[in-house]
Amino acid sequence: LIGWLRGSLQRGGKADLLGDDAALFPGSPGTMVATVDSQVAGVHVPEDLDAGLLAARLLHVNLSDLAAMGTARSRSEESASTWCHALVTLATPEAFDHRHFFSVLLDECAAAGVALAGGDLASSRTLTATMTLMAHQPDGWRPVRRSGARPGDALWIGGTVGESGAGLRLLRRGARLTAHGERAHVFLPPELRGDGPVADAARRAVRRHLRPRAQLELGAWLSSRPEGEHPAGLDLSDGAARDLPRLARESGVGLELDAAELPLSEGFTELCAALESDPIDLALGGGEDYVLAFALPEGVQPPTRFRCRRVGRVRREKELVLVRNGKREAWPEMGWDHLG
Amino acid sequence: LIGWLRGSLQRGGKADLLGDDAALFPGSPGTMVATVDSQVAGVHVPEDLDAGLLAARLLHVNLSDLAAMGTARSRSEESASTWCHALVTLATPEAFDHRHFFSVLLDECAAAGVALAGGDLASSRTLTATMTLMAHQPDGWRPVRRSGARPGDALWIGGTVGESGAGLRLLRRGARLTAHGERAHVFLPPELRGDGPVADAARRAVRRHLRPRAQLELGAWLSSRPEGEHPAGLDLSDGAARDLPRLARESGVGLELDAAELPLSEGFTELCAALESDPIDLALGGGEDYVLAFALPEGVQPPTRFRCRRVGRVRREKELVLVRNGKREAWPEMGWDHLG
Repeated sequence: LIGWLRGSLQRGGKADLLGDDAALFPGSPGTMVATVDSQVAGVHVPEDLDAGLLAARLLHVNLSDLAAMGTARSRSEESASTWCHALVTLATPEAFDHRHFFSVLLDECAAAGVALAGGDLASSRTLTATMTLMAHQPDGWRPVRRSGARPGDALWIGGTVGESGAGLRLLRRGARLTAHGERAHVFLPPELRGDGPVADAARRAVRRHLRPRAQLELGAWLSSRPEGEHPAGLDLSDGAARDLPRLARESGVGLELDAAELPLSEGFTELCAALESDPIDLALGGGEDYVLAFALPEGVQPPTRFRCRRVGRVRREKELVLVRNGKREAWPEMGWDHLG
Repeated sequence: LIGWLRGSLQRGGKADLLGDDAALFPGSPGTMVATVDSQVAGVHVPEDLDAGLLAARLLHVNLSDLAAMGTARSRSEESASTWCHALVTLATPEAFDHRHFFSVLLDECAAAGVALAGGDLASSRTLTATMTLMAHQPDGWRPVRRSGARPGDALWIGGTVGESGAGLRLLRRGARLTAHGERAHVFLPPELRGDGPVADAARRAVRRHLRPRAQLELGAWLSSRPEGEHPAGLDLSDGAARDLPRLARESGVGLELDAAELPLSEGFTELCAALESDPIDLALGGGEDYVLAFALPEGVQPPTRFRCRRVGRVRREKELVLVRNGKREAWPEMGWDHLG
């Protein structure tokens, strides 16, 4: 579908808009960056998820697309509240707690400097929340795009991967986070309850899945690199095994990824054992990591505060290679693609 | 909910963005106008609606919000294709025909000068299509807002009302439009089949409901009125009985609406008889008319090509009055409100 759609748009001359995490509207002055993403109950989040958690997740999943493009939140006091505007549509069953949803959404938006500007409410059997974000970036800002990775670049990942996928598996086994606040309790399925390090890792994984945090500061650092160091990048939303090929395709290059270098969260391997999942499979294919992946010239190092990890390199040969246990393997086939 | 939400936003200083059909982002140069609307299967459209019809309806329901604001499609050849950008999210059951949806959407967008710029695909039990439109308007453009109607203004409606509501009732009785094209056949329920004027009116009503056409040219004419004649307005999406009070509230005025002046489509009264519906109730409350309603100074007349009808007047007393059979009645209570 995506190939056909891009072909159709190419005939209309608009193909460059569909390859990235957000759409770019160059203007004068500045550039408008716009993105949209939905959260569907029973698909992206549990059917019974707290409305506040849904609101926070909706915002950060969308902000992650802006982070991937390298949008920078304005530093000036005057415009800090308007660097980004949100439109929200909610299609909800009757029992949905709209006030709780919007209370949390307004708080989270205020913390992120996002202004809620409008939207639409409808009823539906299936709870579906959709957010559009529009961020205005000043003249001189350069987007981080999926295209532009150069052979020889180092490949980086901006945070741990797989933890969110482990959280999703825990939710499918009955784990629950009860409310939006930082101190809300995570309930684990019976076989994982307790106080040990695996239970702690499990609780963090559930939180990580339900409360992602977009890497806006890392994205802004990336977009501010000088001409010779400007990176290519995207956010890992469908898992590294699905997302990194998109970076390679848009850049017309190959990639080599070293599985041993994938950044994993504390206790992740032990948690995977308890879940009877392979840690590398989950790290590559679990999805919804919402960390950035990017290619930078060899020798350019992101500041240590971002805790990025070098995980491989960009190759001239248009081939995707996974190095695992010292052996070069075919890229894991995960099927499935989506529009952007 | 809407009142509480506006209160919450007012404390944040953003209330002016929520009162209109679209959000306004004043920039320099020009203004960005943005709106979002969803179509949910089983709520806004039949579960089994042709994917192409869904695409066309999604576009025009959203364009109607832009028409309500008075956005003008650029006349210059150069920018005609980029006056407006669309982001689309689809949450769909497995059997959904994505290619048909996007084929028709791209055709309809091209006809309207709208460029599809990106979006997101997800799976869901309930088909939900959401579109965001972003239209850039040049310096000097003035929006048509819900506020600004003045006592003494004449109240106008830009097209027939109630026909779409009759179409919805026919769909609920089993009527169907089979495909997207102009010549696609409307199937009527057994009791209405045939070749008479009532059956013809019924077929037109089903088409009107499923294939609304946004009044963009009328909107552009309204926004181009000179200073002393600048109108207030909105589009009738929830029915005149629900929408006109919003115009009155935002303008801080009252309205008097003459039911006898409501513009009705050919054969509408006879069709209502066959549907056992009261024509005026349906004209006021049927909803989804997607025609504009607006207040203009007495004596200013829209060009006859728009086929507008003067239906009442704006009053200083903050009271809503319906004149029916020569008697002043209380405004019909239709319940229900939505976010914008």
